[in-house]
This record gives sequence, structure tokens and C-alpha cells, in this order.
Amino acid sequence: MVRHEEVKNGVIFPAGEKNEAFSQFFTGQSYLQSLVFDPNVNVVVGNVTFEPGCRNNWHIHRGGYQILLVTGGEGWYQEEGKPAQLLKAGDVIVTYDGVKHWHGAAKDSWFEHIAITAGKPEWLEPVDDELYSKL
Amino acid sequence: MVRHEEVKNGVIFPAGEKNEAFSQFFTGQSYLQSLVFDPNVNVVVGNVTFEPGCRNNWHIHRGGYQILLVTGGEGWYQEEGKPAQLLKAGDVIVTYDGVKHWHGAAKDSWFEHIAITAGKPEWLEPVDDELYSKL
Repeated sequence: MVRHEEVKNGVIFPAGEKNEAFSQFFTGQSYLQSLVFDPNVNVVVGNVTFEPGCRNNWHIHRGGYQILLVTGGEGWYQEEGKPAQLLKAGDVIVTYDGVKHWHGAAKDSWFEHIAITAGKPEWLEPVDDELYSKL
Repeated sequence: MVRHEEVKNGVIFPAGEKNEAFSQFFTGQSYLQSLVFDPNVNVVVGNVTFEPGCRNNWHIHRGGYQILLVTGGEGWYQEEGKPAQLLKAGDVIVTYDGVKHWHGAAKDSWFEHIAITAGKPEWLEPVDDELYSKL
């Protein structure tokens, strides 16, 4: 059963196009709608939609941070060395500079969050299938 | 007729408490739910909900900027010397450092936006009732 299909086309902000630019750093299909990309502003803001099972690789924000505002569906957020946290609409996550982490959809659910990002991401290895499948 | 009553209790993020801290800079009742207030992050993020007719004073963001992500209802955004823009769910506004502006609900509608703010606001005079009533 696939849950939260209502998220598929975007909850408030559009789901956007297939996230080709970052596809090499994701397992599964994600969609990206840029909301703010402006040289006068030190953050970029985007709406990211994940199909069920889709998640990004482990990564680190360097020289900045990332804020996730969860707008729909169900997903996971995990920092290295900590248990994964279940995320639902209305949840807020702040990832500090230098913290290795990943985020993405639950196995059986669409998932969407707004990402507010300062600095540059450093992309690392994919999330282990066994780790993910046990969530 | 009051429109968009569904926004009253928050669309995705809670409407929060009466916005007492800033009430002197608003005409009418607004509600504020802090989402991110963290010394390690150079922006604050809040969910602001405006009752019909509520708007903030003219103000300027100094040493920063503000991003508005409109989540529900109907409202207005105006920069000094420019026409007011009608805002609806899914709209995004970026206000640059030093730009005098105001935002708020339509006369007959609840309105909600997420505000991502860097720097300090400088609060100025209320929006003229005649200007507002003609929108």
C-alpha cells in the first residue's frame, strides 16, 4: 500500500520537476521545485518531494546549515550515531554545520519538505539498504 | 463574509499564540508560532497567521532580508512606491535589505505565511486605513 499519494503533486508549493541535478545523490525518484535562488540572500529554499522509498545519500552541510519544514507525508531523518526520527507534516529539523545525516521518504509513503539551506552540501555514500529496510 | 476560515488554526504548522510581542507593530490580531529560533542559525523562522483586516506596519529589514512562503488564505504585500500584490497559497516573496514594505491579510480573509528572517526589523508607521481600505 502506498500512503499519502495526496503529497505527490505538492501540498502547497508545487512538486516541480524530476530532480535530475541531484539524482546521483539520491536513491529513488525525487522532485525539486526551487522557491528562492537569489544571489542577494544567503539561503536557497526549495520544495523537495520524495516517492516512497526515496532518500538522499548521507551528506554534510559545510559552512552553513539546513532547516527542513515538513509539509506532508511520512519520512525519516537520521544523524550519524543517532536513531532515525519519523517525520510528519508540521515537523521542523535543524541540521548544523558539519553533521553527517540523511533524509527521505518512508518505504510506503510519499514525503515532502521545504529545505532552507546555507552553505554547500558535501555528498557521501548512499544509505545502506539494510539499515533503511529495517526502519 | 469571512473567507478562508480554514487557515485560522494553521494550515500545516500551528497558528500558535496571540502575537503579543509584536502587537504594537500590527493593526488587528495576528498569531505567531516560532519554528526555528536558534543561535547557531542566522535566520529565524516563524509561522504568522493574520485575522481578516490584520496587517503589520511599514517596516524595513536591516542587515538581512525576509522570505515569505504563503501557506494559506489571501493577503497583500506592498513595497513603498509600488502597487500592492495579492498573495495566495504557494506565493513566495523576497524582501531585500533596506526595502520599506508591509504585509497582511485581505479585509475579508484569513491569511498565513511562513517568514524566514535575517537581520533586524525597523518598525515604522501603520499602513494608512484609506490606502488599505481601497485594496
